[in-house]
Amino acid sequence: MDKETLIEVHNRIKPFIHKTPVLSSGLINEMVSADIVFKCENFQKMGAFKMRGAANAILSLSEEERERGVVTHSSGNFAQAVSLAAQKLNVKAYIVMPENAPQVKKNGVRTYHGEIIECESTPEARETTAKKIKELKGASFLHPSNQDEVIYGNSTAAIELLEEFPNLDVILTPIGGGGLIAGTALAAHYFSKNCRVIGGEPMEADDAYRSLISGKIETNNSFHTVADGLRTHLGDRNFPIIQKYVEKIIRVEESEIVDAMRIIWERMKIIIEPSCAVPFAAVLKNKEEFKNKKVGIILSGGNVDVKNLPF
Amino acid sequence: MDKETLIEVHNRIKPFIHKTPVLSSGLINEMVSADIVFKCENFQKMGAFKMRGAANAILSLSEEERERGVVTHSSGNFAQAVSLAAQKLNVKAYIVMPENAPQVKKNGVRTYHGEIIECESTPEARETTAKKIKELKGASFLHPSNQDEVIYGNSTAAIELLEEFPNLDVILTPIGGGGLIAGTALAAHYFSKNCRVIGGEPMEADDAYRSLISGKIETNNSFHTVADGLRTHLGDRNFPIIQKYVEKIIRVEESEIVDAMRIIWERMKIIIEPSCAVPFAAVLKNKEEFKNKKVGIILSGGNVDVKNLPF
Repeated sequence: MDKETLIEVHNRIKPFIHKTPVLSSGLINEMVSADIVFKCENFQKMGAFKMRGAANAILSLSEEERERGVVTHSSGNFAQAVSLAAQKLNVKAYIVMPENAPQVKKNGVRTYHGEIIECESTPEARETTAKKIKELKGASFLHPSNQDEVIYGNSTAAIELLEEFPNLDVILTPIGGGGLIAGTALAAHYFSKNCRVIGGEPMEADDAYRSLISGKIETNNSFHTVADGLRTHLGDRNFPIIQKYVEKIIRVEESEIVDAMRIIWERMKIIIEPSCAVPFAAVLKNKEEFKNKKVGIILSGGNVDVKNLPF
Repeated sequence: MDKETLIEVHNRIKPFIHKTPVLSSGLINEMVSADIVFKCENFQKMGAFKMRGAANAILSLSEEERERGVVTHSSGNFAQAVSLAAQKLNVKAYIVMPENAPQVKKNGVRTYHGEIIECESTPEARETTAKKIKELKGASFLHPSNQDEVIYGNSTAAIELLEEFPNLDVILTPIGGGGLIAGTALAAHYFSKNCRVIGGEPMEADDAYRSLISGKIETNNSFHTVADGLRTHLGDRNFPIIQKYVEKIIRVEESEIVDAMRIIWERMKIIIEPSCAVPFAAVLKNKEEFKNKKVGIILSGGNVDVKNLPF
């Protein structure tokens, strides 16, 4: 891995992604006495940064592999991202989803012509079903967060942010499966002088926080967090990058996540998922630490059921 | 009134407003088979186009008048706009509000240091109280929609839109008090070749539609519309402009407004008020009419109580 690889990745996926806008709010800056710039991946194609990693993963396949299709198990944004990226590249996408997945998520995949394969609602059933598709169709398995191509693709959000704001002191991202923060950490390492990278994580799913302390990948017994995108754990591809390049992880309470989300909705008039309110909640919680700093926050996505909000 | 006047107005208010972004959505364009560009006044300072008119109205006052302050009666966006514009120009703002106005609206005014004067919740009480302040303090009265300076200020949203997209076939705005559509109509007349202007109005508050037919200002007996910004009627300053330059008004049902609002929220990930979903609802309703056209829609504001949504 080097800087050139990430530049190649960025150039490769550019035709398939939006260069998302970077927004700021005077009122929010006053509130925290810092300069915060928000990289709006909620405006990304299909509504989340996942499009970057999915596009790069499919573009990295050989012609032959592409002909056999791709498969993933995800009920969230990565399912839609793989479906859309595959559609654009004329590749068949098989999406393994639990049979009880919300209709809105199934519809999202169908919008982009992904083929849904239903399975029981257990992690084992998802993995077995995906493996079966892989064998049956010869499809390439794509992992939402623990795959190099996906991590490199994700890094391009922070690369764009640093191109526009080269003097950031710190970038914060949410931390769920670890794919976004690992990509962001690589971007900061190769594309900035001294920009630090900090993760935001719900107290209710603080596996990454505990993993950094114990030095091995920890999991959660339960996921009672509104940040539905963060109910996953790290993997062996992204954990070493996180260990090496991420300064620390700040944990926040559920009420802090909801408050942060509401402030961004009300002040910035943009729709963000609960997951991506987590880093801003971390800044609000630790104001002193970020005072007078130039802070970048990656707003990871905007796919939220507007009929079922946490406030 | 001529083109030069509007150019002067625009230059005068530029330091006090945002040049708001223009957004579009591939999925929405597919949905209506047209090219729609949305002028995002929901991202304007204080969250609505009203900032433009309020800024111009205060900037048009003499030094002496400014020293005595300004007064308006509004419980909506214009109250916040006057408060903020006055604060920036170091002018005292008296805002007459009904005592039962929602706390969130009072807080909005207080954020910008407007002084709230409470009165009974009747149109008469609001006017009498504002008149009293005018006499007592010598403050200049600013009208939310029926004042030339406000109308000219409002025109600058469409001027910016036409600068960026000179070939629009038509611009749609919501129609409430008439100040936005009148300004937009002036902008289209002076700054485009043949761009038509069409209003969108709730069936439940269709006074402007009826006014255009009868040739005199009509009012509503009731306002059972979710589009809370449009529960007002036209005035003698804007009605002649609307009669002269607005092609027609399309009326939409309440359910059509809510659906249009939800589509913009879900597809564009931006927060808009119910009022500014009305023109998009009109396009969705009359798809054939707008097919293959270049359509501009002014999203008038984004101040909505996210704890109390219509869906």
